[in-house]
Amino acid sequence: MQDITPWKHKVQYYETDQMKIVHHSNYIRWFEEARISILEQIGAGYDLFEEAGIVSPVLTVESEYRQMVRFGETVEIRAMVESFNGIRLVIRYEVVRENDGVLCCVGKTSHCFLNMDGRPVSLKRSYPRFYEAIRTLPVVPEE
Amino acid sequence: MQDITPWKHKVQYYETDQMKIVHHSNYIRWFEEARISILEQIGAGYDLFEEAGIVSPVLTVESEYRQMVRFGETVEIRAMVESFNGIRLVIRYEVVRENDGVLCCVGKTSHCFLNMDGRPVSLKRSYPRFYEAIRTLPVVPEE
Amino acid sequence: MQDITPWKHKVQYYETDQMKIVHHSNYIRWFEEARISILEQIGAGYDLFEEAGIVSPVLTVESEYRQMVRFGETVEIRAMVESFNGIRLVIRYEVVRENDGVLCCVGKTSHCFLNMDGRPVSLKRSYPRFYEAIRTLPVVPEE
Amino acid sequence: MQDITPWKHKVQYYETDQMKIVHHSNYIRWFEEARISILEQIGAGYDLFEEAGIVSPVLTVESEYRQMVRFGETVEIRAMVESFNGIRLVIRYEVVRENDGVLCCVGKTSHCFLNMDGRPVSLKRSYPRFYEAIRTLPVVPEE
Repeated sequence: MQDITPWKHKVQYYETDQMKIVHHSNYIRWFEEARISILEQIGAGYDLFEEAGIVSPVLTVESEYRQMVRFGETVEIRAMVESFNGIRLVIRYEVVRENDGVLCCVGKTSHCFLNMDGRPVSLKRSYPRFYEAIRTLPVVPEE
Repeated sequence: MQDITPWKHKVQYYETDQMKIVHHSNYIRWFEEARISILEQIGAGYDLFEEAGIVSPVLTVESEYRQMVRFGETVEIRAMVESFNGIRLVIRYEVVRENDGVLCCVGKTSHCFLNMDGRPVSLKRSYPRFYEAIRTLPVVPEE
Repeated sequence: MQDITPWKHKVQYYETDQMKIVHHSNYIRWFEEARISILEQIGAGYDLFEEAGIVSPVLTVESEYRQMVRFGETVEIRAMVESFNGIRLVIRYEVVRENDGVLCCVGKTSHCFLNMDGRPVSLKRSYPRFYEAIRTLPVVPEE
Repeated sequence: MQDITPWKHKVQYYETDQMKIVHHSNYIRWFEEARISILEQIGAGYDLFEEAGIVSPVLTVESEYRQMVRFGETVEIRAMVESFNGIRLVIRYEVVRENDGVLCCVGKTSHCFLNMDGRPVSLKRSYPRFYEAIRTLPVVPEE
């Protein structure tokens, strides 16, 4: 398994809402930031996917908000593979506040892979390079 | 049960991404638009909540993307109560494309209600006016 | 000159920031909403432009904030042509609060038109249909 | 004059639009990111302002787009004081693409300072600590 640097995000003013907390929709964007970062780190960046003619739309999103995050704080978003069979990829996220280590949010996204014609492809069969790369990502530890 | 007008949203250019579809995070914002609209229609608008000293943070979000929505399309977001006991409110959403009636996305959010001190309150006990109003909302039909 | 219906925008919760006002970046998006709306009304929608192989990037943006706009308010965004020579289009915007008619923000955007190769085109010469359509838009009244 | 580290921003997928470039409204947000960063570096962070009961709304924004910025690129946003008299602060921004040093966008924002009652205050008179701090920021070089 490869060594992955977790993605850090400094909370911006424009991400707050009038409840004086980060608006919940932004965490979904942070998940994307972290996902892109870990894929880049294993040499499977979105740009390489798109060059290869593959897009990877989001099929589902889940997010559970445990602690409010506020302007001025920095969070670390840890992304781990929950399951991957070459056709469907499920990633789990943990948003941890940097100054106190509190787990503020957990999330999950699932993805498939489509070719230029919009047809689902198996990375395992058609793009083994990406398949092997993704298999080096950290996985969710078994409980 | 009250008659509720579903919320319509015209997809904006700034909501697209380079996949030429609406970025998935925006649906979470559309859920909020629809939620606010139905609460207003029953006389339980966010402004009235905030005047009464109650905020209603989002506890969880789920979204399942079935069909891509694109710039220039208009969607109808139907929001229905999945469950409500005065303390926790779960709302279900259906995002339906207007021109062909296709169900493009289904989602769910859950909420609690907090007073000024950040303590959970029961609307049923402490704010029966809001409790009764929310109970007039359309509910998810039993299967 | 054609009759144009001004664009209305209901302020959303996710558009607020912790100052309890609309974050200033959102007005730039409202300008786009209004611009797209008036172009559609004259039969020169973005989709038709893109079908014709033209994109119209934003060259400059200006915005002057006079009154804060808040959640729950509805604004009307009036878009008018300030200048247009077929090559460069300058649009002026007025954001007027619906309930009291107060002018809350004025803005301006300028645009050129590019073909598929990224080369500037003159609508007057190459796409007279769009040129003529844009010339039917309301113009900024002379002072 | 103090040594200031320019703000770096990695372009995110959710910041693109279907023209496959960064949507122009996001640069306004990047200006804010850079502004907040330089104020923090001189000990005049937004949090300290808000603790002192001061808010600093945006009065005007200007942005001129020279080169398109794309997903995967990193930009440096250099913020400098154009003018400051204790009552009104004008900041100029330069968005420079990291990999080739190209100046992609220049911008400007102006700000005033309001106390809790929404009244304009002079930092020079009422909050000399902030006034002196801001005067240590880099200024736009004279041409």
